[in-house]
Amino acid sequence: MPDEKRLVNDTRPTHHDVGVVGAGLAGLTAARELTDAGLDVVVLEARDRVGGRTAAGSLSTGDLIDRGAEWIGGEHDRVLDLIEEFDLERCEQYGTGDDRVAVAGEVFDDQDRFRALPAEPTAELQDAFERIETLRRDVPIEAPHEAPEADAWDATTLESWKREAMETEAARGTFDAFVRAEFTVEPSQLSLLTFLTAVDAAGGLETDDESGSVTQEYRLAGSTQQLSRGLADALGDDDIRLDEPVRRIDRRGDDVTLETDDGVYAVSDAVVAVPPPLIDRIEHEPALPARRRGLNQRMPMGAVIKCFAAYESPFWRDDGRSGSVLSDDGIVAEVADGTLPGADRGLLVGFVAGADALEWSDRPASERRERVLDELARHFGPRAADPLEYVDEAWSTTQWSTGGYNAVMTPGTVTTCGDAIREPVGRVHWAGSETALEGRGFMDGAIRSGERVADEIVARRD
Amino acid sequence: MPDEKRLVNDTRPTHHDVGVVGAGLAGLTAARELTDAGLDVVVLEARDRVGGRTAAGSLSTGDLIDRGAEWIGGEHDRVLDLIEEFDLERCEQYGTGDDRVAVAGEVFDDQDRFRALPAEPTAELQDAFERIETLRRDVPIEAPHEAPEADAWDATTLESWKREAMETEAARGTFDAFVRAEFTVEPSQLSLLTFLTAVDAAGGLETDDESGSVTQEYRLAGSTQQLSRGLADALGDDDIRLDEPVRRIDRRGDDVTLETDDGVYAVSDAVVAVPPPLIDRIEHEPALPARRRGLNQRMPMGAVIKCFAAYESPFWRDDGRSGSVLSDDGIVAEVADGTLPGADRGLLVGFVAGADALEWSDRPASERRERVLDELARHFGPRAADPLEYVDEAWSTTQWSTGGYNAVMTPGTVTTCGDAIREPVGRVHWAGSETALEGRGFMDGAIRSGERVADEIVARRD
Repeated sequence: MPDEKRLVNDTRPTHHDVGVVGAGLAGLTAARELTDAGLDVVVLEARDRVGGRTAAGSLSTGDLIDRGAEWIGGEHDRVLDLIEEFDLERCEQYGTGDDRVAVAGEVFDDQDRFRALPAEPTAELQDAFERIETLRRDVPIEAPHEAPEADAWDATTLESWKREAMETEAARGTFDAFVRAEFTVEPSQLSLLTFLTAVDAAGGLETDDESGSVTQEYRLAGSTQQLSRGLADALGDDDIRLDEPVRRIDRRGDDVTLETDDGVYAVSDAVVAVPPPLIDRIEHEPALPARRRGLNQRMPMGAVIKCFAAYESPFWRDDGRSGSVLSDDGIVAEVADGTLPGADRGLLVGFVAGADALEWSDRPASERRERVLDELARHFGPRAADPLEYVDEAWSTTQWSTGGYNAVMTPGTVTTCGDAIREPVGRVHWAGSETALEGRGFMDGAIRSGERVADEIVARRD
Repeated sequence: MPDEKRLVNDTRPTHHDVGVVGAGLAGLTAARELTDAGLDVVVLEARDRVGGRTAAGSLSTGDLIDRGAEWIGGEHDRVLDLIEEFDLERCEQYGTGDDRVAVAGEVFDDQDRFRALPAEPTAELQDAFERIETLRRDVPIEAPHEAPEADAWDATTLESWKREAMETEAARGTFDAFVRAEFTVEPSQLSLLTFLTAVDAAGGLETDDESGSVTQEYRLAGSTQQLSRGLADALGDDDIRLDEPVRRIDRRGDDVTLETDDGVYAVSDAVVAVPPPLIDRIEHEPALPARRRGLNQRMPMGAVIKCFAAYESPFWRDDGRSGSVLSDDGIVAEVADGTLPGADRGLLVGFVAGADALEWSDRPASERRERVLDELARHFGPRAADPLEYVDEAWSTTQWSTGGYNAVMTPGTVTTCGDAIREPVGRVHWAGSETALEGRGFMDGAIRSGERVADEIVARRD
């Protein structure tokens, strides 16, 4: 019963220089930077663990898997720095053999998934990617609403743009699968401007590296949650309060007051490092500015189910396959080889994303298992149907993320309230990968956002 | 301090047959119907008043105004029935004289605002309206995602459709103003399918009545909040708990448990009668189904500022003007004559809507006043610049509506999770004007939704 907990609330507020809401990579980075700057910081976390959308899971063998964020790009400096600092084991993503693209009822295997289709759809797809690369250079990353054709681009869904840019079913299907796999939304659910901005903030399209994606070069042995744990360890035990969702943020006094079921924290500055849709779950007193509220309501989380199938060995490698699949046929939009170097077992990691993820999150786990394994078997042969173990994680059903990978602005949002994303409201500052100007949507962006917001607060206090 | 309140929470749950969250027209109608059916009902309301988006305000003279919902259509049977039942005074909307349309830097005056433009844009606009009337008949109102071209229509923003359907700046500007005034969002922010569904559920476009809008035929002397008060009076005093926002809905036991800061209510069935974006502000245990959560996150509130300027008399009538303005020039999208029959004063009611409403809600009230009066003076001459009194209500800054008039599905929502809108989750049922199949977006729809959900619960118990 919550009653007992609430009785504890009858205490005087404790005071800290900064209160951080959310102990994901963004919040923990901010907390560490601010602590290093000599400030007294408290971190309030709703979950019983740190890490947010980085989350370790384990197989029955004890092997650790990443239920959440996993892949690391070669240009993700901040992540690579932390790996070095915490002395973690980085390993390269397996990329030998043929990728598969399954679209329009056919399958195409090639070492480069974006050149797997026949000549005509491949040309269409490459042309579309080139157009995106050209267009995105016209989008000022700090102020995308100031792009020359911002209004028109923000009023055009990516689906509308795709239908104009590509004619063949195969090219369109590949593009759909790519959008679902990378952004976990449907092409109808974001505008061309949102897409261009996201591509730009992520460092470009990930389609020009023959060996796969430039943002999927490395993984961590033992889960990326170690990055968050490492940051947490650098803070004192008392500085991170788990199981304490912030219910209310009061900006009316000289201090900002953060209320949880267990306590009241008066802070000079607050950092809110949770995804935008969760910001409105907190009661704000006074109400947040209309544009900030408008933004929170117009930035829903994507939807994804991450699926793991473990086998005796990575048998697909023997068939000359990389393990990579991009598919518009069925519900699994993307598959990757998730085998860790030195591990006994082979691991395939599948992603159900976008509308399919919303629908299948609500179905029984056994149905999901059957359907996903059926699709893996279609791609990798009958051995894939019979794994040693299958588990999945439906992020849309998690209480404190409500979806994944990221929150994505809906059409007509960038140009109407998008610039509220990093704008402090009084002494409340905003972090999270969604706010990043580099590495957005990735762990790297989360860390960068934590650094940015720490700088913001230190500068304000000077 | 909330601490004192929370201590009171240390009580045993009280039991009721039904718990209703939200004492707007939908919730109160459900409560009355269920009470009439012999059930024991408790209504939990966050505000210190009943009425939700119906809200009385007053001028310094004591004259009552409608800060929220005001106009009533001739086919809004449910509202008209309540007016009769509660013996309230209905009055006809003034509609004599010329309407004004201000678009593309010019003004056009005519008795029918949708025929005020020159011949070419008028023809374009009428053609567009006819196309919408034709298209919307292909949308099954109970299942719009099953419309023949649902996917394409849901992936096309209304802005994209408009650019294809109309060429002239004047026709496009009039359409923009119409969409903002009626739906309080930008044409870039909703899909053609959402628009067609909304038009259908509202009973058609309101563009074919020469005297104005068919949904704006009547008003109530003394505020529409009387409708909610009338319904509340029919319930016992103890049955409506004001100032008790529901913080948590727990569906894990045999009963559904509703928790507020002041108490715990165990109920056999719950009715949630708040706008979808507010549903996620409540903690749900277990988490709501993914598609329901997806919908809540993809249905932001529109944005509107309702502005009132009171004058010695309705002087515009003497100039042969109806008081009606539809404008794409400036921030006031629509103006109507709000003078009550028999009142000494003249009243103009202006609406700032969509992106302008978000932006101007955050500006100082004095700036808003100056800007709105400046625009009124442009439309009605210098006398309009100098009212006896000016007040406005920025719905986006209200703590418990977070916007207005209604929540509107973003592109790609109807076809992915839109059908979750009325689907009960266990014993939690959903009401509110947004869920209505008739009169949607109006008070009439709110009442109908309350009736529908009451029927749902009674049927379940049988």
